Amino acid sequence: MNGTAQIGVTGLAVMGRNLARNFARNGLTVAVHNRTAARTRALVEEFGGEGAFVAAESAQDFVAALERPRRLVIMVKAGDATDAVIDEFAPLLDEGDVIIDGGNAHFEDTRRRERRLRERGIHFVGVGISGGEEGALHGPSIMPGGSAESYASLGPLLERIAATAPDGTPCVTHVGPDGAGHFVKMVHNGIEYADMQLIAEAYHLLRAVAGYSPARIAETFRTWNTGRLDSYLIEITAEVLAQVDAATGLPFVDVVADRAEQKGTGRWTVQIALDLGVPVSGIAEAVFARSLSGHAALREASRGLPGPSAEPLGEEEADRFAARVEQALYASKIVSYTQGFHQVQAGSEAHGWGVDSGAVASLWRAGCIIRAAFLDRIRGAFEAQPDLPSLLSDKQFAEEIGAAQDDWREVVAAAARKGVPTPGFSAALAYYDALRSERLPAALTQGQRDFFGAHTYRRTDREGAFHTLWGGDRSEIAAD
Amino acid sequence: MNGTAQIGVTGLAVMGRNLARNFARNGLTVAVHNRTAARTRALVEEFGGEGAFVAAESAQDFVAALERPRRLVIMVKAGDATDAVIDEFAPLLDEGDVIIDGGNAHFEDTRRRERRLRERGIHFVGVGISGGEEGALHGPSIMPGGSAESYASLGPLLERIAATAPDGTPCVTHVGPDGAGHFVKMVHNGIEYADMQLIAEAYHLLRAVAGYSPARIAETFRTWNTGRLDSYLIEITAEVLAQVDAATGLPFVDVVADRAEQKGTGRWTVQIALDLGVPVSGIAEAVFARSLSGHAALREASRGLPGPSAEPLGEEEADRFAARVEQALYASKIVSYTQGFHQVQAGSEAHGWGVDSGAVASLWRAGCIIRAAFLDRIRGAFEAQPDLPSLLSDKQFAEEIGAAQDDWREVVAAAARKGVPTPGFSAALAYYDALRSERLPAALTQGQRDFFGAHTYRRTDREGAFHTLWGGDRSEIAAD
Repeated sequence: MNGTAQIGVTGLAVMGRNLARNFARNGLTVAVHNRTAARTRALVEEFGGEGAFVAAESAQDFVAALERPRRLVIMVKAGDATDAVIDEFAPLLDEGDVIIDGGNAHFEDTRRRERRLRERGIHFVGVGISGGEEGALHGPSIMPGGSAESYASLGPLLERIAATAPDGTPCVTHVGPDGAGHFVKMVHNGIEYADMQLIAEAYHLLRAVAGYSPARIAETFRTWNTGRLDSYLIEITAEVLAQVDAATGLPFVDVVADRAEQKGTGRWTVQIALDLGVPVSGIAEAVFARSLSGHAALREASRGLPGPSAEPLGEEEADRFAARVEQALYASKIVSYTQGFHQVQAGSEAHGWGVDSGAVASLWRAGCIIRAAFLDRIRGAFEAQPDLPSLLSDKQFAEEIGAAQDDWREVVAAAARKGVPTPGFSAALAYYDALRSERLPAALTQGQRDFFGAHTYRRTDREGAFHTLWGGDRSEIAAD
Repeated sequence: MNGTAQIGVTGLAVMGRNLARNFARNGLTVAVHNRTAARTRALVEEFGGEGAFVAAESAQDFVAALERPRRLVIMVKAGDATDAVIDEFAPLLDEGDVIIDGGNAHFEDTRRRERRLRERGIHFVGVGISGGEEGALHGPSIMPGGSAESYASLGPLLERIAATAPDGTPCVTHVGPDGAGHFVKMVHNGIEYADMQLIAEAYHLLRAVAGYSPARIAETFRTWNTGRLDSYLIEITAEVLAQVDAATGLPFVDVVADRAEQKGTGRWTVQIALDLGVPVSGIAEAVFARSLSGHAALREASRGLPGPSAEPLGEEEADRFAARVEQALYASKIVSYTQGFHQVQAGSEAHGWGVDSGAVASLWRAGCIIRAAFLDRIRGAFEAQPDLPSLLSDKQFAEEIGAAQDDWREVVAAAARKGVPTPGFSAALAYYDALRSERLPAALTQGQRDFFGAHTYRRTDREGAFHTLWGGDRSEIAAD
């Protein structure tokens, strides 16, 4: 029993369907399967002309349709549904076959599944796929984990459907073993949260401090998009802000309820960063800002709280301020990516994945939500110095942030004075200033901990742990 | 077989030993037990004169020494050690007996243990105990969860050893069922992290911006401690800053390595807040600040990064600035507690605990690390309005923060301009400004989400979910 399909996709909701079409449009024979067969039939009826599909009604037919080693992509909801599908298909597979999970799985689930299937000789590949519906169809950014062996079989197929970076490289690479792909995809989403929050703050400042209209802010973002901020998110910000609501004639952004929802990967990013001891304050503030926006009762109860009187700036001052906001946005963005790549490196070290940060930056250059011209320079920085301790240690980024810092500081100061919340800009600046501090007040914190909990401290001038007898004569004792 | 000890303590490291002594000093007969019996003997030898101890060498002897229903306090390391001790003792107990876990357990572990033991008719009481070694001996703040029935038997004993608030109330109350006690203790620790970070920032500002010496800052904190900031942490801050290192003659705070450590409850608080959707940005920034301080290589690599030129202020200006820092510290502290109590309420709702926020504030008034005069006013606010949506909705706190806000804003602005990291002050101000905002830029975020992921949005002017056909004619469709 050896089928003809080079790849199979089970789970034909919009992401799965578009991914299957992408494979077919790129010349592969694609077996397609769905729990309810009507969806399978609909796909072939509607898009059968795009390429070679093999519609399978049963799990057995689906597996039989695949050439060996079988490559089978699961596109179902993360969590229990994924386990159910794995349990359905694994018994039908042979040693050397490859199960690919293209959902937004938690990387620890991916590790567990990979371990379990490895015992049976089946490769399990957790793949992060970014780019939404459009990306799935026209070329997503693809972040596969799993064994190197599975990538040898799977990689060439993924390279056909991935987005292509401006230099022609496909946006797919073997990220690392087991959960590495889903981990990196999770951090991608965390950075996406931070990027969106920073953009939201820039918009808020231009609106409330500079007194710009949404249409004018759309123009501003369009201009920014021609410079170093050139990116998909800046581009669509301009589109959203330029949109006029047909029903009311008002700016679209003014009729949308100001409650931002979330699906969980941003939260995961922060929770895992906390376990790894990586400060991802920008991502955390972005997640909190979304939560806060949804607390209707709390916000209602707080509307009367006093704030400063804010008069918009004059025309010329406003334009100068807008230029400063661009600097602040760019500098904060560098910090966000610094924090995100720190988490990628820390995750890689904790799990022995050997993730190449330059390669990760490379595959985020196109196809995914955070795609940006800027990522090619991050790729370059890590390629030139693979052991770069942090993006901020790169000479070029350090120079840029140095040039931006005066304006960045003025923007954060203005936001504080004018009562505009800029948790992302402020957290990024605090992170920058803390990192470059010769001495941090953490010494006081550690002294307090020794005072109330005898937690001991280290000294700057000699090795060892020490404790001061705070309740006694306040002399110091060695505490090793 | 019915013993004479009203309570037993197993696990006689410093916390367990001090707790046992506290019970004995308050007239109870206390059975004591430790895995290695030498420690038990040492306790009785050294402190036997303080009260009635029954030293038990074996688990059997320990259980036999207790009157019924037996009340047995476990004081061992949180995690596997706790499970091991429970597994050792549970088979020796009878229905109606009470096992008390006084360690820093994760509340989900407490829930699991409570469920399991309840099936066997044994009460399991997870108790948060704050106050460190000294508190355990002289009167801690005690936060017991578990069944109301177990509290009826246990409460009177705990009331004897608990700290006493200025109005004479013992700092112990039945917080709520199963994990409620450990949950509230966890949030206590999260708030403690935030308090310590805010104090560290105030110190840093007084040092770097006002140009004060540690001795002078100690004086400043001593003065603040006579006002509305009156609290244990402010008091010990003055002590730590006044300390002079005997070996070098330098201020103690200057010879302590500036790496703040952590044991995990702050991290848990943030991780669980993320699950609950509660923005605890102040606690998160405090946890991140500690992590950041420990990243030696990253800090080393970042020391050369450009910052503003900071000249200290003149004498008179410096004193004015110090007064402003007090305002900023107080306002930020109100926000920290607002966030912490929000988490207590959200946890209580999620688990059906019925936690009384006023009672929680009441039992934090003495004995624990965050004890503060301020907490009596929080108690009063929640007692007067049990359904207060947030501390910021309390008239008095709102007025105080209103009076503080100009200075608070100036301090955050000055920190940004002078290059002093104030992640806690800034996060608190951003939270305050976001909560009181009429409109948040979350509307833009939600619009972007609809653009790239068809995640839909709500409108301000009518019910329902909507989607704009961004890739098409940009008309709006209902998406319910």
